[in-house]
Amino acid sequence: MNPLENLTQYFRDFPGIGERQAKRFAYYLLTKDATFLANFAQSITTLKEGITECGLCHRFFAHTINQTDSTCDICKDPKADNTQIIVVEKDADLEMIRRSKTYNGLYFVLGGVVPVLEKNPEQRVRIRQLMQRIEGLAGTVNEIIIAMSLTPVGEHTDEYIRIALKPVTEKNNIKISSLGRGLSTGLELEYSDTATLKSALGNRK
Amino acid sequence: MNPLENLTQYFRDFPGIGERQAKRFAYYLLTKDATFLANFAQSITTLKEGITECGLCHRFFAHTINQTDSTCDICKDPKADNTQIIVVEKDADLEMIRRSKTYNGLYFVLGGVVPVLEKNPEQRVRIRQLMQRIEGLAGTVNEIIIAMSLTPVGEHTDEYIRIALKPVTEKNNIKISSLGRGLSTGLELEYSDTATLKSALGNRK
Amino acid sequence: MNPLENLTQYFRDFPGIGERQAKRFAYYLLTKDATFLANFAQSITTLKEGITECGLCHRFFAHTINQTDSTCDICKDPKADNTQIIVVEKDADLEMIRRSKTYNGLYFVLGGVVPVLEKNPEQRVRIRQLMQRIEGLAGTVNEIIIAMSLTPVGEHTDEYIRIALKPVTEKNNIKISSLGRGLSTGLELEYSDTATLKSALGNRK
Amino acid sequence: MNPLENLTQYFRDFPGIGERQAKRFAYYLLTKDATFLANFAQSITTLKEGITECGLCHRFFAHTINQTDSTCDICKDPKADNTQIIVVEKDADLEMIRRSKTYNGLYFVLGGVVPVLEKNPEQRVRIRQLMQRIEGLAGTVNEIIIAMSLTPVGEHTDEYIRIALKPVTEKNNIKISSLGRGLSTGLELEYSDTATLKSALGNRK
Repeated sequence: MNPLENLTQYFRDFPGIGERQAKRFAYYLLTKDATFLANFAQSITTLKEGITECGLCHRFFAHTINQTDSTCDICKDPKADNTQIIVVEKDADLEMIRRSKTYNGLYFVLGGVVPVLEKNPEQRVRIRQLMQRIEGLAGTVNEIIIAMSLTPVGEHTDEYIRIALKPVTEKNNIKISSLGRGLSTGLELEYSDTATLKSALGNRK
Repeated sequence: MNPLENLTQYFRDFPGIGERQAKRFAYYLLTKDATFLANFAQSITTLKEGITECGLCHRFFAHTINQTDSTCDICKDPKADNTQIIVVEKDADLEMIRRSKTYNGLYFVLGGVVPVLEKNPEQRVRIRQLMQRIEGLAGTVNEIIIAMSLTPVGEHTDEYIRIALKPVTEKNNIKISSLGRGLSTGLELEYSDTATLKSALGNRK
Repeated sequence: MNPLENLTQYFRDFPGIGERQAKRFAYYLLTKDATFLANFAQSITTLKEGITECGLCHRFFAHTINQTDSTCDICKDPKADNTQIIVVEKDADLEMIRRSKTYNGLYFVLGGVVPVLEKNPEQRVRIRQLMQRIEGLAGTVNEIIIAMSLTPVGEHTDEYIRIALKPVTEKNNIKISSLGRGLSTGLELEYSDTATLKSALGNRK
Repeated sequence: MNPLENLTQYFRDFPGIGERQAKRFAYYLLTKDATFLANFAQSITTLKEGITECGLCHRFFAHTINQTDSTCDICKDPKADNTQIIVVEKDADLEMIRRSKTYNGLYFVLGGVVPVLEKNPEQRVRIRQLMQRIEGLAGTVNEIIIAMSLTPVGEHTDEYIRIALKPVTEKNNIKISSLGRGLSTGLELEYSDTATLKSALGNRK
């Protein structure tokens, strides 16, 4: 396999990228000079040098220069409301919530979703780590907010988390909630569905 | 203008139909025989014979054979909860809510929306008729639910209705609410927006 | 079935129209007054009064007031080049060619295409009428141009026509051709295919 | 700028990639281990070690281990028909033609297209190198085939090349041709255009 095909294979595995676009990426890099390529390559090899997966919430964060532990700035933030923890699928969801500035509690990145027929969900998502985290927060946290996408797999993951956390939440008297349904921005009533309408009527105000 | 072009012009004005599809419709009808065309034409001329606009909610409904008034079956339904009335833009929205079987109150079809810069909104939508209807229900109804689409024009219409109804609702102590916002079915968290997330967090359960 | 549902059913059978849009059309007509509906209905019932299917080329055309035969203006045109006849699938294709002003010969509307596994193609398309028409033009016409879409079913129909016409063309020494392949307007080379490229190279100029 | 944002910026400049997908790529790489990242980075830094831009046709090619010159395998191929040279915009176009196996001559990669209002086209595309290459082939080559996309900018580039090459082709009696127009695979007649139809009629067979 020549270098062009070799690199194309790497891009082929990128999320959402097909054969043709993978090739385009490789040709694009061919037009760049050696310095550019060296810098780009270095930004890949050093990617994780500055980025750590938080030991508590499991999000990726840029640690500070002299940082010795693996706890992120949100988990350390003394102003964060540690009575609430929100469980999201991935970093991008966490960022979306953060950007909305409507939530000030703790986070937990599950690292995936649980398909309906998955036999070993505990190997796909960080459910054990979530349980440990909640145990560790017992006495402090009083609500776990599940924030999955409203897709079939998202709803199934929501249910899976609720069942898995039941022992620890019941023992410690912690409430579990899920994000509310309703009309989302841009939705035309004519194209909504029964579940959405039911919720929208239920939480009218 | 020949008959083909003439008919094409009619289809040209149908909602969502362009020149090319309008022509296709005309050609499609050309392949049909005289009996079919006569029946189709009759279903158009007799459309309104069996269909009446309800004098109370303004929806179109199929009246019964001996019906002498113009009140629809929903407005007459003794089982309907006449303490609530929901205001929708158009018949299709009303049907969507009806099909969801999550609402059992009265309806009102506004007949349109109010664009932001509209100077004569009362000529575009049935706001006067809505006010009269609410007056007529004073003492019975205790909540008006505004059910507009979550589009900019829908949100503007919601606001317009609230302002217009304020005198009558304050006088009669009637609550005004709007459908609740939140995650709607199929929405991925990553592609949601601040307003939706804020509501979804607010009405979590 | 009430008048609204009845009319919706008619629109449901229109080409490219689904349940929802069919209903929209019906609601759209409900907002029109009786005069409009009567005029629209009349344009449907009288559609074929002014429009005739040409006995020779089978296209639909608007006949003139005192016309007693069923031959269209193109077939009658003394300036038309009657040494050539082009075979198209449908009226819309004929019009597209006419509008291009690059062809001045005769036309024939086949009235459909022949799917690959069709057992009775002669019942789906006007192949017998085409053969008769060519027989009638023997001695005059010297080329038949097949103008099907470059889709699998179009290519199969092309082949079907060639086989069916073989006896009459060989007997009368008439050439059969098909529209040329090549790059069509807007095509990017990167997204073309082998057959197109081969033709484009073959007919370069 | 932290390492994650830094890497995202690189992906942001990839062809066809927006902010959101760039970020996804970076997060995707964060889930990989150090060995994977090192290998990926190496495939980038070594990309051009094995790949050379051919000094004659300017395509990128994988040179053989002991290769000392910069001439690609196509340009060296003794079986190639060196009476023809085809001019393409980019490597991907060249590959498409090669894969079609319908052309056996020489190639030249122009390296871009010439927008209509471009003031310095010779700085955007390899027109000088093309002229030199043709000069070098004088006496051997007898046809230059321009193979641009059938887009406005492609057609303008075609014209630009013809004008620029005129002196050299007239002096050496070399023919210039362009890929033929016509129906391309998948095209429906109803959705074609006048230029395409005209060509398709002209090169029917």
